[in-house]
Amino acid sequence: MTAPTPDEAASPTPAAVLSVSDEALADDGYRAAVVDLVAAVAYGEISAFERLAEDAKLAPTLADKVELGSMAAAQLGHVTELRERLHALGVDPFEAMEPFREPIESFHRHTAPSDWWEGLVKAYVGDGLAADFYLEIAGFLDESTGDLITRTLTDVRHSEFVVGRVRAAIEADPPLGGRLALWGRRLMGEALSQAQRVAADREALIALVAGGVDRPGLDLAEVGRVFTRLTERHNERMGRLGLAF
Amino acid sequence: MTAPTPDEAASPTPAAVLSVSDEALADDGYRAAVVDLVAAVAYGEISAFERLAEDAKLAPTLADKVELGSMAAAQLGHVTELRERLHALGVDPFEAMEPFREPIESFHRHTAPSDWWEGLVKAYVGDGLAADFYLEIAGFLDESTGDLITRTLTDVRHSEFVVGRVRAAIEADPPLGGRLALWGRRLMGEALSQAQRVAADREALIALVAGGVDRPGLDLAEVGRVFTRLTERHNERMGRLGLAF
Repeated sequence: MTAPTPDEAASPTPAAVLSVSDEALADDGYRAAVVDLVAAVAYGEISAFERLAEDAKLAPTLADKVELGSMAAAQLGHVTELRERLHALGVDPFEAMEPFREPIESFHRHTAPSDWWEGLVKAYVGDGLAADFYLEIAGFLDESTGDLITRTLTDVRHSEFVVGRVRAAIEADPPLGGRLALWGRRLMGEALSQAQRVAADREALIALVAGGVDRPGLDLAEVGRVFTRLTERHNERMGRLGLAF
Repeated sequence: MTAPTPDEAASPTPAAVLSVSDEALADDGYRAAVVDLVAAVAYGEISAFERLAEDAKLAPTLADKVELGSMAAAQLGHVTELRERLHALGVDPFEAMEPFREPIESFHRHTAPSDWWEGLVKAYVGDGLAADFYLEIAGFLDESTGDLITRTLTDVRHSEFVVGRVRAAIEADPPLGGRLALWGRRLMGEALSQAQRVAADREALIALVAGGVDRPGLDLAEVGRVFTRLTERHNERMGRLGLAF
């Protein structure tokens, strides 16, 4: 753990300030969209920490508990850098996160795992889906912001643990596979419904994706391709867990 | 976060094995005491992670939640190295932790914070007291084990956060100071009662502290001095929080 003290986190290093002094950020609309995206990822990671730490209570063994707990800790470990970036963008990090609290908490309320296995699948499939979604948007950003989002969302260390545990459990108890396949579909449905809710509410993010006078955006065909890619990667994850979509 | 994958954690590096090939460990009784101590610290940190993550829910602000969550994550971050050492000592890490589960969980059950402030004081005073206790025992160990215990227990990054928050709260609401002073005394009492329970049950640890044929131990006067030091440091922590003991 190398998280800085609160004081360090509150005053970004000159390097961090420098890295966002990109000319793209001179555009207020673009800057607002970047703030929204970074804040959404940050709140998502705080919330994922809370939920994973909570779901770790369902672990059948102490070793499993430590694995899920470590996934929780890894999520929170990224938040410091995202807070520093929000500071460098001139906003209060926690105020910037506020608009994403309710949709993200709502997602978690609607997808509270009923047992250890649902928790594991959610940790792998749900967090993977959220990461894919943010990474698609990050593709429209300046390099510095795009790199930050990619760095704070790329965390596959614990994937093998989840895949191994879930596959073994389904092999020992095949009906579990059917239940978890349904659960995976529900996670996808809830995620889409909350993403739509955020989209309807955050004009700057929509404008970013739609493009502007001097910025390319997505036409309807491209939106379709993004959706197809998200679905394909979701299905790949389900497949790796041994679950049919 | 640089925690290794489960597989890496399961197979200690040659360096880790080397560092415990101390001749002191050839003594089975000594080795058993070292296993007990490392396992107790490891389970204590896993349990502290769970409790701090739980208590973070009581946070009045998102910023406070992230602070306490980061304290939780830091505790779990130490567990990997302790597990590696238990492996290197030739035991299953989680089996070695089992005897400490009930006394440590019992401590937490008896000291469940009723609000955010009790949670903060517990995070600072309770974890500080536990660390002091283990560090006193670590003084009787070979250098490699002593260093490991010191390294995994020394974590003052978040102390200033707790001190600042608690002092400000007491200033704004003086009766809170009286309640938290009583709470601090209760934490001390419960910790001592659980420590006695562990001591009564773990012969190797007692033998370590009492000394052996070729190892110095504590006489009754020295046990008294250890207790005095633990109490003094507890009172210093209470004082820093603005609480009279």
